[in-house]
Amino acid sequence: MAEADRAWPDLAGRIVEDASGRHHVLPIRVYFEDTDFSGLVYHASYLRWCERGRSDFLRLLGVHHSALFSGSEGSEAAAFVVRRMSLEFRKPAGIDDVLEVRTRLAEFSAAALELEQTVWRGASELLRARVQVVLVARSGRLLRLTSAIREAFAGDGAA
Amino acid sequence: MAEADRAWPDLAGRIVEDASGRHHVLPIRVYFEDTDFSGLVYHASYLRWCERGRSDFLRLLGVHHSALFSGSEGSEAAAFVVRRMSLEFRKPAGIDDVLEVRTRLAEFSAAALELEQTVWRGASELLRARVQVVLVARSGRLLRLTSAIREAFAGDGAA
Amino acid sequence: MAEADRAWPDLAGRIVEDASGRHHVLPIRVYFEDTDFSGLVYHASYLRWCERGRSDFLRLLGVHHSALFSGSEGSEAAAFVVRRMSLEFRKPAGIDDVLEVRTRLAEFSAAALELEQTVWRGASELLRARVQVVLVARSGRLLRLTSAIREAFAGDGAA
Amino acid sequence: MAEADRAWPDLAGRIVEDASGRHHVLPIRVYFEDTDFSGLVYHASYLRWCERGRSDFLRLLGVHHSALFSGSEGSEAAAFVVRRMSLEFRKPAGIDDVLEVRTRLAEFSAAALELEQTVWRGASELLRARVQVVLVARSGRLLRLTSAIREAFAGDGAA
Repeated sequence: MAEADRAWPDLAGRIVEDASGRHHVLPIRVYFEDTDFSGLVYHASYLRWCERGRSDFLRLLGVHHSALFSGSEGSEAAAFVVRRMSLEFRKPAGIDDVLEVRTRLAEFSAAALELEQTVWRGASELLRARVQVVLVARSGRLLRLTSAIREAFAGDGAA
Repeated sequence: MAEADRAWPDLAGRIVEDASGRHHVLPIRVYFEDTDFSGLVYHASYLRWCERGRSDFLRLLGVHHSALFSGSEGSEAAAFVVRRMSLEFRKPAGIDDVLEVRTRLAEFSAAALELEQTVWRGASELLRARVQVVLVARSGRLLRLTSAIREAFAGDGAA
Repeated sequence: MAEADRAWPDLAGRIVEDASGRHHVLPIRVYFEDTDFSGLVYHASYLRWCERGRSDFLRLLGVHHSALFSGSEGSEAAAFVVRRMSLEFRKPAGIDDVLEVRTRLAEFSAAALELEQTVWRGASELLRARVQVVLVARSGRLLRLTSAIREAFAGDGAA
Repeated sequence: MAEADRAWPDLAGRIVEDASGRHHVLPIRVYFEDTDFSGLVYHASYLRWCERGRSDFLRLLGVHHSALFSGSEGSEAAAFVVRRMSLEFRKPAGIDDVLEVRTRLAEFSAAALELEQTVWRGASELLRARVQVVLVARSGRLLRLTSAIREAFAGDGAA
């Protein structure tokens, strides 16, 4: 763990266990950049936040984009790519709000992770999303998930 | 029509009629801002482009966000809000590509527009999206679509 | 302090005192959204991060955008606006990096705050910026800084 | 010239000659994504627009990021990087506005281009910027500008 990670212990959020299993929680502050002229959060900001949630869930499980993309994980150099996504925007958020992105593995197959993501402000659910991600080599070829990734999620969803 | 619009006649794209009805086409150039470290287009960039397509389709039909939001359209001051969206990312795009966003009204009801949007590079379909938008007053109240909006789309979808 | 702020104590960074005075430190993780096809951080991402640093410095001093913009601070409804900015990009950053934005008040007058902002990765300085912000009413009129803002910075710079 | 470029002749703007020399003009529409809760354009949006102006000026001169980054221009694979920038925000812009980004070469040396960029709404100047860009190899090494780039700008500034 690098010095910066020690200095800011919650920077990548936390993995939480509850009755329904394990999920990841990432706090998000709403800044100017996230809002639009309507006064509320711009809809595509939620995609950026969900991507942060997925990245930090993987990070806490030991899977890093930089290592995957340099090929140092023992597989071909690769990056995660979103292949499918559905979103339901339930309530708006505004400047200065503190939100939480919650990410849970719903399913995984040899080649894809399927995640459920929700965004909350306190007890209000603002967004529900379902996201399918795959691992794509620099060459464009779809890869099987690495064993590091499969082990990281062992027990979270049906293999 | 303002002077700037005359100087750049295609800035808001074009409305095109074909066998399957009327749709809007907006050209998009891929810039630095749209890409990520994987070398390809960042997934949330497609949402920004689809929003531009919807805005320019409405614009060419005479419906302007600035007028809606100032309340000068005769209704309560309001803005369009995305309520539901599903996305299928089929092929990647990269820096310097020229793409087209095609937007078609799929359905409309008293309170919602449902649009089909696709992104193309030449004959390759890169993205398919289905988007539901509603009109929300500054107070947060869901509004009926204004008569100007309903008339703009008359004939495009089932009312 | 809201429940969410208690749950994530460092979300708005920290105010730090050192030999040269008081400054604010905000940790930043580099995500997909911040990078471009060159493999490195997109230059405009630094502006978003600096804005977060300014917002959170003000927040820890008790000044909130939402309160300013609703007019509940006793002044006309207003928002901060950047009027002038100079930036020197010294070293690049990449995906997964943990950075720190450091913000220090350099000067303030009746109507403007002038801030020095730097971005660091460990002991490497990546960016140096100087930013002048002013408070602008919804009407477009330039305002004097509120007494809450002036008091918040009392002692940090020359009035 | 690809088919898409023929279909949308102004997509990369235009190079214009006037009394003070040659410059590039790119039209910009203000969309939801460019604004923030204050109701106006978010300050970092101007950086994205200026980058589009620089890219399209180079494009019309025959210099393409994709070719530079693949190394097919006969030099080491490289990308342009902003090294220094100063910005003066003079007037605000809002949703639906049509703006123009004007880009002019101010100076160039063996290793850097220095550009003057302004953003206009009709006859109102909204932003003035000065931007220094350099060419950096994938290895991180600063490169001399390629002969294609130097020839493209021959006559525009002092070599």
